[in-house]
Amino acid sequence: MSEHVVVVGADAAGMSAAHQMLRTAGRTGRELAVTVLEQGIHTSYSACGIPYWMAGDVDSADELVARTAEQHRDAGIDLRFGARVAGVDLTAREVALEGGERVGFDQLVVATGAHPIVPGWALGADGELPAGVRPVKTLDDGQWWIDRFAEAGPGAHVVVVGGGYIGLEVAEAALRRGHGVTLVTRSRVMSSLEPELSERVALALCDAGVEVVLDADVTGLVVGPDGAVTGVRWDGGARDCDLLVLALGVVPATEFLDGCELSRGEKGALRPDPHGRVAEGVWAAGDCCAVYRRLAADSVFRPLGTHANKMGRALGDSLAGGSLAFEGVLETAITRFAAGGQHVEVARTGLSREDAVAAGYDPVAVVTEGSTASGYMDEADPVAIWVMADRSSRRLLGVQVVGGRGAGKRIDTAAAVLWMEGTVDDLAWMDLSYSPPFSTTWEVLGVAARRTAERM
Amino acid sequence: MSEHVVVVGADAAGMSAAHQMLRTAGRTGRELAVTVLEQGIHTSYSACGIPYWMAGDVDSADELVARTAEQHRDAGIDLRFGARVAGVDLTAREVALEGGERVGFDQLVVATGAHPIVPGWALGADGELPAGVRPVKTLDDGQWWIDRFAEAGPGAHVVVVGGGYIGLEVAEAALRRGHGVTLVTRSRVMSSLEPELSERVALALCDAGVEVVLDADVTGLVVGPDGAVTGVRWDGGARDCDLLVLALGVVPATEFLDGCELSRGEKGALRPDPHGRVAEGVWAAGDCCAVYRRLAADSVFRPLGTHANKMGRALGDSLAGGSLAFEGVLETAITRFAAGGQHVEVARTGLSREDAVAAGYDPVAVVTEGSTASGYMDEADPVAIWVMADRSSRRLLGVQVVGGRGAGKRIDTAAAVLWMEGTVDDLAWMDLSYSPPFSTTWEVLGVAARRTAERM
Repeated sequence: MSEHVVVVGADAAGMSAAHQMLRTAGRTGRELAVTVLEQGIHTSYSACGIPYWMAGDVDSADELVARTAEQHRDAGIDLRFGARVAGVDLTAREVALEGGERVGFDQLVVATGAHPIVPGWALGADGELPAGVRPVKTLDDGQWWIDRFAEAGPGAHVVVVGGGYIGLEVAEAALRRGHGVTLVTRSRVMSSLEPELSERVALALCDAGVEVVLDADVTGLVVGPDGAVTGVRWDGGARDCDLLVLALGVVPATEFLDGCELSRGEKGALRPDPHGRVAEGVWAAGDCCAVYRRLAADSVFRPLGTHANKMGRALGDSLAGGSLAFEGVLETAITRFAAGGQHVEVARTGLSREDAVAAGYDPVAVVTEGSTASGYMDEADPVAIWVMADRSSRRLLGVQVVGGRGAGKRIDTAAAVLWMEGTVDDLAWMDLSYSPPFSTTWEVLGVAARRTAERM
Repeated sequence: MSEHVVVVGADAAGMSAAHQMLRTAGRTGRELAVTVLEQGIHTSYSACGIPYWMAGDVDSADELVARTAEQHRDAGIDLRFGARVAGVDLTAREVALEGGERVGFDQLVVATGAHPIVPGWALGADGELPAGVRPVKTLDDGQWWIDRFAEAGPGAHVVVVGGGYIGLEVAEAALRRGHGVTLVTRSRVMSSLEPELSERVALALCDAGVEVVLDADVTGLVVGPDGAVTGVRWDGGARDCDLLVLALGVVPATEFLDGCELSRGEKGALRPDPHGRVAEGVWAAGDCCAVYRRLAADSVFRPLGTHANKMGRALGDSLAGGSLAFEGVLETAITRFAAGGQHVEVARTGLSREDAVAAGYDPVAVVTEGSTASGYMDEADPVAIWVMADRSSRRLLGVQVVGGRGAGKRIDTAAAVLWMEGTVDDLAWMDLSYSPPFSTTWEVLGVAARRTAERM
């Protein structure tokens, strides 16, 4: 008799899990009937692509959809749209849908993702966002912003609140659409970078014509008589604007589990094991989960599409009798800011200095200036690399990169060393590729590691 | 009393060694007097940059010189030009210069580099190369070719004999200078790649308008009444031409050591230990040396500027009482072909399938097609990745990449895994960076590793 698997959420994690469990079941002989409940009407889309769609790089939302509903159904998945889960009864093994329907399950997979953060100061007395204010999270948000950008026209001024990855990418999109842009952030631009590198990103934004407001706690919006936003206020300042983007991050969408006895971590995130197990017959993957942080041996909330894909795949395989595991993260991340004549690539992996100290390491860190190619080549762009290692063990702990074309993806080499628990000397001396259009004779990542090694 | 160190050869290895030994001596208190004997008049130049100078990317030879003679002398190095070493007497601790002078040493550093291969078929009855025929190795060669390209003019036809890195780069240079180009190779184009990937490079050359002749053993040149080359013949074919570039690789420049009792390896290469020691008081680094190949645990001749730099540095440090070591190579290499509307990046690391079998591994290899960025981005270029691993240990053994912009430098991530002796599963699941302009959700290198892992 086949087992009924109910997957809640039809994005990266849920659909990866659904497809992988069917593939693995084909090998292990497990009989699975898979139902996916999706509250909206979209599946498997690239949320990370939305800022590029807003910028005009991507023609339509369809391009952001990796697999259509038909493709999922053809694979044997019972995909139901408009099915919003209100609660779960783990004893009765049922999910309750809004509207009253109950769906029984043998195995439950939670892949509900995350909600954008909407702070109190953004809401009107009616509890609603004023016209011209919205986060950027879903395809519907993306379409809404494209329409607003078009309506407002090139002269309009856009305030982006939040200086992280999405904030940076939305600032790029708005600038490339011809808007004036102000970026307001509570601390630094890209605060997941060390201050020395964060500053370089902020300077690139300024050089591109973005007004950058650092260390600003937003206190409220100014709303016109028609109910539309006309400005924003922060401690010590204010700015008129036509549109305001909330780019303040996300929280796990797990509130429908509040009645269940399931262990939850930071911000309510679920904490699955490497195979995706949360409890007997309950599994979870993707942005509703915390992830294991290898270097600190703890669990943190780091929602990211690539983790969601891998977690879904490991979960699906394990649920169907396989053994694939998601062995955690290094906090590797990359983005760029390319507008207003600037092109700066930003990437990080491993711990921050602060986190390294908290995890008991004795960090030594150095910033090295170098070049992405041999100095005599047109391809040569400046790059700054921060390398941190532990003084006694010499273990590599973290690397951050800010630079021109070709700088960013170098982070993967550092990530590989971190993954393998290598030392700063490994990174300094390993056989990395050299040819004038691609690197200096001694690859800059190796030079940066060597310089840190020399301080230890 | 200070020790006299004589360094023979003033390029990457020799000058890295000279500078590092002085730096380290400052720390260890060793008193060193350093003399560098250089047969020519150039130091520390980028031989790898010569094809890009020929192509017009680099304005003058000066740009290829990393440090001038003055800079070396300012660091306290006695740099002598035009000092050609004829022989070495290890018992008397002297080098003999051409012209008769003898220079005593306490420590001898051999950093003489390599000679280009000039096959018998290229030489006339007088033992000289016909006009219009020359290798590409030194700055003088580069200037000579720039002059010949200019004289011959855009309509001229250039034959490049040799399908390796230099052959590919010179074909690019000649094509970008407006010449017709034929590339003749004994086996495949880029024969250090597996056939599946080599073929992609050959197709890009063809698409760019290069005539590619594979599996051709050149048998002789055709020379006009004025003594200049007018054509080339190979088994089964021939080609008229105005110029012919010899790009057949190099051999270690160690013939002046023939009278010495020093262990030599492949092609006469010296075999220093990781600190650069060859014998008591004799050291060597750079293109005159074989290198330790980590994955096969053997010694091979792989002349490359980046190895020369590292070997020189380890040698210099060790000679002066330090402990830096050059721990061998993975055979990582990268180049590109960018001309005639094509841009293809080519990179490799680790063993070939043939070498893996010879080293006792049981290799499984798969070629995966993917993309350098998310499919909906303009940055998305096709890439093909070959991943090989050992069946029983799952150890990663080799990775090769051929693809568009951004493809090539991905090889460093694979190199890091090889350096750390990781498995194909490590590469598949490690936390590599993702953002739409930089990768697919699951980085293509990880996907390629996963697909190989699934065949094991």
